[in-house]
Order: sequence, then structure tokens, then C-alpha cells
Amino acid sequence: MPIHLQIEATRGPARAGKLITPHGEVETPVFMPVGTLGSVKGVSQDVLEELGVEILLGNTYHLYLRPGVETVRKMGGLHRFMSWDRAILTDSGGFQVFSLNDLRKVSEEGVAFRSHLDGSAHFLSPEKAVEIQIGLGADIIMAFDECTEYPAEAQRARDSMELTLRWAERCKSYFEEHKNEVPWGSSQLSSPKDGNSKKGPDGQTQALFGIIQGGMDSDLRRESAERTIDIGFRGYAIGGLSVGEPRELTRDIVELTLEHLPSNQPRYLMGVGTPEEIAHYAQMGVDMMDCVLPTRAARHGLLFTSEGKISIKQARYAQDESALDPACECRVCQRYSRAYLRHLYASNELLAQVLNTIHNLHYYLATMRTVRNWIRAGVPK
Amino acid sequence: MPIHLQIEATRGPARAGKLITPHGEVETPVFMPVGTLGSVKGVSQDVLEELGVEILLGNTYHLYLRPGVETVRKMGGLHRFMSWDRAILTDSGGFQVFSLNDLRKVSEEGVAFRSHLDGSAHFLSPEKAVEIQIGLGADIIMAFDECTEYPAEAQRARDSMELTLRWAERCKSYFEEHKNEVPWGSSQLSSPKDGNSKKGPDGQTQALFGIIQGGMDSDLRRESAERTIDIGFRGYAIGGLSVGEPRELTRDIVELTLEHLPSNQPRYLMGVGTPEEIAHYAQMGVDMMDCVLPTRAARHGLLFTSEGKISIKQARYAQDESALDPACECRVCQRYSRAYLRHLYASNELLAQVLNTIHNLHYYLATMRTVRNWIRAGVPK
Repeated sequence: MPIHLQIEATRGPARAGKLITPHGEVETPVFMPVGTLGSVKGVSQDVLEELGVEILLGNTYHLYLRPGVETVRKMGGLHRFMSWDRAILTDSGGFQVFSLNDLRKVSEEGVAFRSHLDGSAHFLSPEKAVEIQIGLGADIIMAFDECTEYPAEAQRARDSMELTLRWAERCKSYFEEHKNEVPWGSSQLSSPKDGNSKKGPDGQTQALFGIIQGGMDSDLRRESAERTIDIGFRGYAIGGLSVGEPRELTRDIVELTLEHLPSNQPRYLMGVGTPEEIAHYAQMGVDMMDCVLPTRAARHGLLFTSEGKISIKQARYAQDESALDPACECRVCQRYSRAYLRHLYASNELLAQVLNTIHNLHYYLATMRTVRNWIRAGVPK
Repeated sequence: MPIHLQIEATRGPARAGKLITPHGEVETPVFMPVGTLGSVKGVSQDVLEELGVEILLGNTYHLYLRPGVETVRKMGGLHRFMSWDRAILTDSGGFQVFSLNDLRKVSEEGVAFRSHLDGSAHFLSPEKAVEIQIGLGADIIMAFDECTEYPAEAQRARDSMELTLRWAERCKSYFEEHKNEVPWGSSQLSSPKDGNSKKGPDGQTQALFGIIQGGMDSDLRRESAERTIDIGFRGYAIGGLSVGEPRELTRDIVELTLEHLPSNQPRYLMGVGTPEEIAHYAQMGVDMMDCVLPTRAARHGLLFTSEGKISIKQARYAQDESALDPACECRVCQRYSRAYLRHLYASNELLAQVLNTIHNLHYYLATMRTVRNWIRAGVPK
């Protein structure tokens, strides 16, 4: 069976179910932690498993630069390279490349850019982005799109959308020709030591998702959705949001775009958001989300709790013996006090980043579990 | 029962047994990982437990500056503050203060120094160092000594040793008067959340260890040992080594000093060494050792393996699918390849420091397990 979404309950526009992938099932709606370079910063894979993470996001741009796609391919793909046998999604690199601003130049063919690491020159095209993603071997890979900046003039938004559509066609064509080159076939999903190697998901292929653009224009969003669906993908992402626009506008665009997406396929909202936002979007009918917020905020000492956001660096917590979040069941809240976490952060101890990240991820995953339960209390399907 | 060593087997000068403390038993000879600021950098307490760590070292100088002894005391002592209910040893702060060089001034009374953090002025005396250590509440605390520099003139080595002996007397006196002020009595050794609080080891007191100095002079070392033993401590440390002298000289001084220490009390060699060295010292009759080497080296990508030291940053490991140490049973070697560890390190990923530290600690602890088994194959007692 190819990668697909199995909807098991609905509640209004929201749906709960399972995303079936070559590397396991993923309960949806799902929040995908970001593992930029093949690692969720500071958190080992066994802790991710314990947290209940079923799908991770990897960044093509970063993995392309380090360790490079050839290394990952030779190591049997990203799953085996990072010893993670649950599902992975890679972005196309488009968003990162567009964030480089002064270091990139867009043409019909693709994007020339310079590495943020050493200034070296590179070129990403739709074909190249898909080629890299096949080499990395994530379960779900993304079309190479242009993320339209905000604000954008009407003509600019249309031109950008048209470019993304032409690139989507090229991504699809390249993928169809090369999808059997995924490094799973010969891969042994095993630890580096033991002999109990598990065969990779032989014969299966990745799922390529299309990305809807169209700026903040409802007509363009509808047109982008319809024409992307015409090209035909195994799932659809809403891109070009969280680029500086007001949050209400984000919600409006998400809502109207969702109306034009097929109800039986995965819907992925890229790059959002706060815990409240991800819960809200899931209730609106989004199946998948990712965001650096929980992990990045954790490294800056910003922690999400049932009582609101806490900045653990504050002196008021220096002798606070209570748990970070008394309502939280994560291993950090079960064991450590705010006073200790504050001390670790204030002393710049590595463990601060580790523990803060574990807590924030747990908070995001628990938020999604709550939403899934809420949906499952709706109408079974 | 006060803190004491229970010797269960000997083999030549080496002994294996148990150090009985208010916070559990410690198999000896033992290597104590360094948790400078109440945390072994990057490694959470549950992982330390899983690694089999039974005693940690905390640094008085660092904990005095951050979070400060009053905070730790109010939080019920270091055990409760860091949620670690196994044994802890704190150093006296002497070694760190003497390392400040330009920032310190020694007098009969003690050491005036400036914080390496903000330049603020502080003063540590024998009484103050013991007062702080009682407030921190480690199971084993150390006398405040002067670490004689290397090389030192004969007269300088003697003067320094005499100062350390006078300070040792003052430490002992202060400790005897104040030993009941340890924050365990009223402490609740519990997680910050659950109500199943475990009472602290009520009524017990800490153990104060003396430190042998005397530079690299065998007569001074003997005299220092005899006169320190006359003062009377619950254990004896060999200080003033690993200060730049050749390794053979270290071994000679350790060997001759050990001869003058009571055979029924714990012997602690401070601040050594490589895996080979700690194994060797344990075979010579040392019961306890600590060193920043495994943790600090890990953060620099230097990993100890059964095949020798590996610098994981090297490009030769970029596509090496084998385990870091095929003979190692740690969770890192069981799961990840050298290629992945090399990638994490080369990409400056936080997880590199976490995983490298776990491996090196495991290697040190396994080394000591092997030595203990070797001794236990000797003469039971």
C-alpha cells in the first residue's frame, strides 16, 4: 500500500486517523518535531521514541550541505543514518533557500545560492531538490516551491504562484522517473552492531506532496489548490504562511485553502505555530504541522506550560521548588524543580537545553493528543 | 553507622568493597564523574543512574558562585536540588581557587579571590569552605587545602604543606562544631510533584576527608600523611598531583603516599586520569578517583574506546558505519554509527556532546567494573 491517510473520526472539519507510511503509522493530526540536521537538538532518538514522536522533519537544505546527500545515501538513507526507524518527512529546501535573501538568485530553472556556512555556490532546481530528497529517503518529500514573500503585490503573488506550479510539474515528472532510486531497498535498518538487521521497506516508494502558494489572495489560493491537485500529489501542504503576516490573516488563508483540498488526502500546514495555534489548526482540519518553536524556544529558556509561557531565566524561579508545570507528566516535570531548571539555564549548562527541549516537545505532543481525543469523541468513520 | 569503607576483597595492594554513605552504597574502586554545577554536562540524572553512577562530584567553588549555597540549602541540599538521591562528594574549592592565579591572594587566614564570572571579591577560609560544604550537603566533603604548585622549591613545598596542615585542623574543628547543620534532616528527598516524599537520612552526618600535600618530596608526603592522620579524618585524599608533573612522578608519589595511609579507610586520588591510569591507580590501592577528562574530552570529540582514543571529528569517519567501539555496550555504541557521531560533531549539534559524554562515562565506569572484578578474583576478606 502506498502512503495514505486513514481517517477514523471527524468532528466538524477536523479529522483524526492514521497516516500509513513505510516506516510505521502516525496518529493524526500530528505535530512533527524539527530535526534539522538529522537530530532534534539535544534529544537522543530513544527519548524521542519515549516521547511518542512518530514522525520527524528533516531539512533538505541543511542535510544537503552537511553531511551531504551522498553520505546519507551511502549510509542507507536518513532513517538508517540517524538510527530512526519511524517516519520522516523532508522539506524541499525551498524555504531555507528563500530565507537566504542576499545569498540567492531565482530564475525559471531554479535558485542559485551561497551556503550560509562557507559561501560556496550551489544550485537547487525542482529536479535537484527531488533528487536530493530521494537520496535522503524520507517517507514523505516535498515539491520545490517558491515561498512568496509578505507583503507581495498582486502581480508578484501570481507570478510566484505560477512559478511554483511549473516547478511542481517538474518535481512530479522527476519523481515519477526516479522514485525507485530511494535507498531503502538495499538498506538494512539495524543498529551498527547487532546482526538482527531488519530489511528496509523494499519495493515501496516515497510520497511526494505538493505545496499550495498564492500569497494572501483568496482567489490565487483557490487557483493554486485546484491546479496543484490537477498535477496530482499524495498529499498537499499549505505553504507561504508564517512569513510575517498577522495571525488572523494566517487563519483566514488556512481556512479558505483547506476548503479546496481533497478530504481524503493528508493536509500539511507548514511552519506553525504556538500550542494554541496548532490545536486550532487541527480543529480546522489540518492533519500535519511542524515548527521550530518548541525546540528553539526551549533553547532560549521559553517553556510552554498549562499555566502559560514561562521564561525560566527569571530570578523569581531561583528558589521555586515546584515542578515546571504541575499538570505535566513529562520526565522533566516529574523529576526537577523550577529552581534547578533556572539554575541550569542561568549557568549556561548543556542540560538546560536538553531538559527544556524535552519538556516543550512533550507539551506539543500532549497538546496534539488532546486534540485527537477531542476529535475522536466526534463522529467515527 | 557513619560513612565507612567495607573492604570485601584484596589483590596485592588493591582492594574492592563498598563505600557506605547516607545516600546509598558505592562499589569501590570507583570513578566519580564530575558534575561541576550540579549537572554532568549534557547528561540527565536518569541516564547517570542507568550508567550505574553511584557517586558524583560537585565543585564547591562553582556552586558557591552559582546558584549559591543559600539557595542550595533552602532547596534541601544538593541531592534534593538536583534530584539525585545517590551519593555526592564535594571538593573544598581550594583547587579551583588556586587555579585563578592572578585573581587570588593567599594568607594564613585563607584565600581572597575574584570570581571568574564577574570579578566580584570573595574570601574562602577553611571554616568557610566547610560551612559551604555543610550547606551543600554532600555525603563526603573535603578539607580546604593549598594545592602546591609544580615545580616548587623545598622550602615552599614545606611551608605550603604546613599551611595545609593548619587549615586541616581548622576544618576539623569547624566541622565538629557544625556537622549537625547539614540540610538533610528536614529535607524531603522527593520529586517536586508527587506526595511520596522520602525522608532524608535523618541524624546522620557528612564525612570530612583530609588531603595529603607535600609536593613531589617523599619525606614531605610521608610527614603530611602522618600528621593529617593524627588530626583524624574519615578518609584521606592525595592532592597536589596532576599539576604538570611527569606521569611517572605522579605514580611514584601516589605509591609512596598510599603506603602511609590507613588500610581500613577510603583513599581518594584527586583529579586523575586516563582510563589506563585510573585502572592502574586502582590496582595500586586507590579507592576513589575523579577527573574531568571523560566529560571534557567528550565535548571536544575525543572518545575512549577499547581500540584506543578516537577523534570523531576526523573525515575518515564520515562514512564509517561501524559502532564507535564495537566492544562497548553503551547505548550510544548500540545505536549509532561513527558516521552519524562524526556528522553531529562536525555540524556542532548539541547531541554530539550528549552522546559523546554518555559513551566516555560508560567507558570509564566499565573500566572500573573490570578492575573491581579483577580485584574480587583475588583474596576475599
